[in-house]
Amino acid sequence: MENGNSYRHILKWGDKREEVISHHMAEVIKEKFGLSDADLKGKHLPGTEPVRLAKPSALKPAQLEHLQGICGNENVLTDDLSRARFSCGKFYGELLDLRLGLVPDPPDAVVAPRTPEEVERIIRFCNAEKIPVVPAGGLSSVTGANRAPFGGIVLDVTKHLNRVLAINRVNKTVTVQAGIYGPALEEELNRLGYSCGHFPQSFEYSTVGGWISARGAGQASTGYGKIEDMVVALKAVTPAGVIETKDYPRTAQGWDLFRLFAGAEGTLGVITEATLHIFNYAPQNTASAAFIFRSFEAAVETMRNIMQSESGKPHLFRISDPDETDIAFRTSGFDGTLADRALQLLGFRTGSRCLMFVAVEGERDYARFVLKKIKGKARKGKGMYIGTSPVRKWLDQRYSSAYMRDPLMDLGIMTDTLETAITWEHLLKVWKAAHDYVARRPKAFLMIHISHVYENGANLYFTFLSPMEKGNEKQDFSAFHRGLVDTILANGGSISHHHGVGRVLAPWMEEHLGRSSMELLRAVKKHLDPYNIMNPGGTLGLI
Amino acid sequence: MENGNSYRHILKWGDKREEVISHHMAEVIKEKFGLSDADLKGKHLPGTEPVRLAKPSALKPAQLEHLQGICGNENVLTDDLSRARFSCGKFYGELLDLRLGLVPDPPDAVVAPRTPEEVERIIRFCNAEKIPVVPAGGLSSVTGANRAPFGGIVLDVTKHLNRVLAINRVNKTVTVQAGIYGPALEEELNRLGYSCGHFPQSFEYSTVGGWISARGAGQASTGYGKIEDMVVALKAVTPAGVIETKDYPRTAQGWDLFRLFAGAEGTLGVITEATLHIFNYAPQNTASAAFIFRSFEAAVETMRNIMQSESGKPHLFRISDPDETDIAFRTSGFDGTLADRALQLLGFRTGSRCLMFVAVEGERDYARFVLKKIKGKARKGKGMYIGTSPVRKWLDQRYSSAYMRDPLMDLGIMTDTLETAITWEHLLKVWKAAHDYVARRPKAFLMIHISHVYENGANLYFTFLSPMEKGNEKQDFSAFHRGLVDTILANGGSISHHHGVGRVLAPWMEEHLGRSSMELLRAVKKHLDPYNIMNPGGTLGLI
Repeated sequence: MENGNSYRHILKWGDKREEVISHHMAEVIKEKFGLSDADLKGKHLPGTEPVRLAKPSALKPAQLEHLQGICGNENVLTDDLSRARFSCGKFYGELLDLRLGLVPDPPDAVVAPRTPEEVERIIRFCNAEKIPVVPAGGLSSVTGANRAPFGGIVLDVTKHLNRVLAINRVNKTVTVQAGIYGPALEEELNRLGYSCGHFPQSFEYSTVGGWISARGAGQASTGYGKIEDMVVALKAVTPAGVIETKDYPRTAQGWDLFRLFAGAEGTLGVITEATLHIFNYAPQNTASAAFIFRSFEAAVETMRNIMQSESGKPHLFRISDPDETDIAFRTSGFDGTLADRALQLLGFRTGSRCLMFVAVEGERDYARFVLKKIKGKARKGKGMYIGTSPVRKWLDQRYSSAYMRDPLMDLGIMTDTLETAITWEHLLKVWKAAHDYVARRPKAFLMIHISHVYENGANLYFTFLSPMEKGNEKQDFSAFHRGLVDTILANGGSISHHHGVGRVLAPWMEEHLGRSSMELLRAVKKHLDPYNIMNPGGTLGLI
Repeated sequence: MENGNSYRHILKWGDKREEVISHHMAEVIKEKFGLSDADLKGKHLPGTEPVRLAKPSALKPAQLEHLQGICGNENVLTDDLSRARFSCGKFYGELLDLRLGLVPDPPDAVVAPRTPEEVERIIRFCNAEKIPVVPAGGLSSVTGANRAPFGGIVLDVTKHLNRVLAINRVNKTVTVQAGIYGPALEEELNRLGYSCGHFPQSFEYSTVGGWISARGAGQASTGYGKIEDMVVALKAVTPAGVIETKDYPRTAQGWDLFRLFAGAEGTLGVITEATLHIFNYAPQNTASAAFIFRSFEAAVETMRNIMQSESGKPHLFRISDPDETDIAFRTSGFDGTLADRALQLLGFRTGSRCLMFVAVEGERDYARFVLKKIKGKARKGKGMYIGTSPVRKWLDQRYSSAYMRDPLMDLGIMTDTLETAITWEHLLKVWKAAHDYVARRPKAFLMIHISHVYENGANLYFTFLSPMEKGNEKQDFSAFHRGLVDTILANGGSISHHHGVGRVLAPWMEEHLGRSSMELLRAVKKHLDPYNIMNPGGTLGLI
């Protein structure tokens, strides 16, 4: 449908399919935003023009030649399309830029090293020449971490550094090159009876290095942990040398150095290798259940009780708030069915009822036992078990809601997500405040879910939609987005649970962390990257 | 028995009792080390002389007055006994020094701030005056972290900063001042139905601040995690300012700053507050089991299988190797009983058989279910269930083997422990190499156990005993100890799993971590403590 060298080619999520708006979804959109059928036919800012960059590559010919000498000519790209493609991630503001034909932060070249040694040579060279280096995995950042505001090179580790190096069955770990994508890793592990256990929504288009750099969380993180819980060792190339940590099961030999790279978002160096815990691949053992609760408060209280009861944890654990539950029921065609009417009569009413999804993995009888315990607690919390098929249906589309953004933007709908890690005591306050904030914008809609759960709290995940202010798309979005972040932080939320900070959320860092903490981040940065060549230009609020 | 102002008063473990050598133990000692009954009557280097320091306090009168002005006269101690008491921890070499009447590293004063604000004022003052500051918790370091080789002050946070500040039942966390001792914390938590879940052997005489600083592990760490897994936030006063982290359940806002203080051993600042996960206190639910295996290899294989099977984990999980099992059987009087003879006939032979202890906590039916799964795996691994009483007996003396060191040293027996975190693939190799090393010393004896277990490995804990070389106690010990550390590292072990590094293991840091990693540690140190006032003199291998 679109040109292979168009802005649209860059902005759209994935390369295999383009999701279309379903009939049910179209009805919801028309109602929520007062759109007509005709409105749904248009295509707002489709970005179908061919990419053309205003800024030529600023690398000197000798620099380019040197890089080509290291990696081979075919691994140093300076054409407009490549530079544009590696100039951004998938932040809404970046997609909007592309639709507007804007590429504000292109690198001067995209360089794909073939070996870890080439990475070292490139970093040494760029450090000596003070050329910025932006490490790139799958370019799925939604916080602006994949930009090159000062030019320089993007280091594409996905092209060559994408292999499984070793599966250690004794230690139950895998060692990979950081540029490997989720599906390639999972496929290789599955063949030997293992799973990586890490399934973020971006799974298909994100890499191990990116997961670690942004401190990502998979959809089964409640059981398997976030990526920083899975890393047992890593190797990173920094301007100050190679940092290589070992795979000991915890140590007490100073503080954990690998943890400096979890969440560093490319500002300290390039992760080239990682050793991760792996898990048994036994999907046939999964025990799942869906419940419905009369209120968000009741669902949250039950979730907290389950997490704090010390009787086994689910791996997947989610609650959709009333607005998200409503959309799920409407877009699935459940709304208005006999079953729906029965639920309403039982007090599970539209506008207050909430879905909870649970899946427990592990050995078959263990998973069943833990699920039985969870069912007991859900029942006590006045939740009603509604079978397993809602969970299965959700799993079937676990990666696809990311595809919805493109057709929604085609309709002129602004849509973005935010998320926050928050303790139980502040969770409902942030949930309410966010809804109040979004309700103040006419024709805006907010759905919230909880999808990563801990003993002391959880994350809240916000998906907001509203018609764009046409002709003023960027400023309108920025102001609205800023207000929502302010609301989350003012009510006790954190900047991010698993999307990272990037450049988009960086302005909140210093006030949120405190000055001494920010200075400590900067001191680590200064030591490893004295000339600020690594992902420079504001990432994490660093200079 | 000893004078309240003697060296012995300082060196002996605890203040409530002095363990005596049991009849069974005495028999073992006589046999292993070729000692006579007369030998067991002597008292080698008892350290009963009154403490007298050669070095007078080097603080200038104005400095002393300033400190007194901050904390009150009664909280600034400069007498010999106090300075000697706070000049060391419980490392074997330090105990030997005390027995020899040596106090090589006394501070100039012991200062006990009454409030966190006083801590800040003290650190600011000492930074300005370049006075070394050694933070002290329970003084139980076995790696030489509690010394003041450059003098200065020891900051005693246990005297006043020892309170539970808040128990948050919603988040299931506790916030404490760092100087609180284990029993005081546990007692307060138990009253409200919670437990701290952290029970190191030093529990009675160690503090939360010390646990975090040394990255300690409790005896139930396999289920509850090490202390760094329990910390959700902390507050530390550094020369560069106060670092305060928040209690969010994971975040992705840069790397974890609280983790810099886990394992920093006082070199970066003073931890004043911490928020920790807490657990349900329900000892009546504990499901425990003891097993015996025909070989260490079989026990380890079963332990690994249990940890990697994804069907629930025990909280307490231990294996005693054949030598430790033998000592346990002999000192308990089991050796030679009918039951023992039956075991021998079944192939569980002295010299190769191994004990495994398991305890699962949590909700009653959950603990039982997980134990049932473990029993099944133990059976498959050819382990024999031998009831619960060995576990109960072990729990009864869980803290008391630390008391044995003093009467053993009175007998002229050198005795120390080492421990290492190690992956499964290298575990047996290190176990064998350590035994081979110790076997080369005539009249030396080594027991090894595994007591903290992970998916990818475990720790090995070494207890060695040998008659002192009288008149050359220190050099003899040093050389023997150094060789054992070398052996552990050469075969794939790490420097420490939960004792920390201190000054004793510091010489191995740079080679083990690598130069870039050590430089990174030093850079963090340099930023937070530019004048190197915090626990200076080699801790962690820093300058």
